[in-house]
Amino acid sequence: MADWLDEIRWNDDGLVPVITQELQTGDVLMFAWMNREALQQTVQCQQAVYYSRSRKKLWHKGEESGYIQTVHEIRLDCDGDVVLLKVTQKGHKPAISCHTGRHSCFYKILDAGCWHNVEPVLKTPTDIYENIGTSKEKVIR
Amino acid sequence: MADWLDEIRWNDDGLVPVITQELQTGDVLMFAWMNREALQQTVQCQQAVYYSRSRKKLWHKGEESGYIQTVHEIRLDCDGDVVLLKVTQKGHKPAISCHTGRHSCFYKILDAGCWHNVEPVLKTPTDIYENIGTSKEKVIR
Repeated sequence: MADWLDEIRWNDDGLVPVITQELQTGDVLMFAWMNREALQQTVQCQQAVYYSRSRKKLWHKGEESGYIQTVHEIRLDCDGDVVLLKVTQKGHKPAISCHTGRHSCFYKILDAGCWHNVEPVLKTPTDIYENIGTSKEKVIR
Repeated sequence: MADWLDEIRWNDDGLVPVITQELQTGDVLMFAWMNREALQQTVQCQQAVYYSRSRKKLWHKGEESGYIQTVHEIRLDCDGDVVLLKVTQKGHKPAISCHTGRHSCFYKILDAGCWHNVEPVLKTPTDIYENIGTSKEKVIR
């Protein structure tokens, strides 16, 4: 493994949190995790590769749906324990990054003591499912 | 505790990761954690209150330095386990959110297999320390 990977403070599970931001808009699209291999692959292919904690394996974003993220910039924070990606979200216009079919995963806003959904569903998971012919879960992944 | 707090999926330590984004620029300023009390206080005072995992107590950002963050918007992600704040970073122009005296904590960029610092120090921690008369650590906090 390269030295630059050793400068990251991986947590006890060998992971680092990753914030993914859309280059063109500045919108925070999603939050995920990477292990060393995921980050190394991200650098090599210039596409976002995360680590799925639930499935315990690498998750090349868009590998089945085509909703890949091309990576323009990789940043690390002052403490060396959080990564920020600046990406272009591919595969649909307007861009969809969330498994609910929304632009961003951060579509719930707190107002008057309640969470409100403030971003439209650009394509329903069912539509995506039918078009792709695979599971909803796989589609957005 | 309010219902909206119960809709958040707190981790095993009772915490949720928080991404803090500057409202005016879209810049991701920092990444921190909150517990229920921190988020409730954030809502009540409309200023960012985090939970310090190292000090194991609430951390009202800017409580000693004046480098507070006024909160304009609080968002939650699709899985209900990550919070996004949109803030105005107060106390210095240009805005400083990082304890190193930089605008953002995400000032290291990966290029050709090395991390490079790409944001200037706007005010040195020593300067801030001397002006405030307290510890460097406390100053930015």
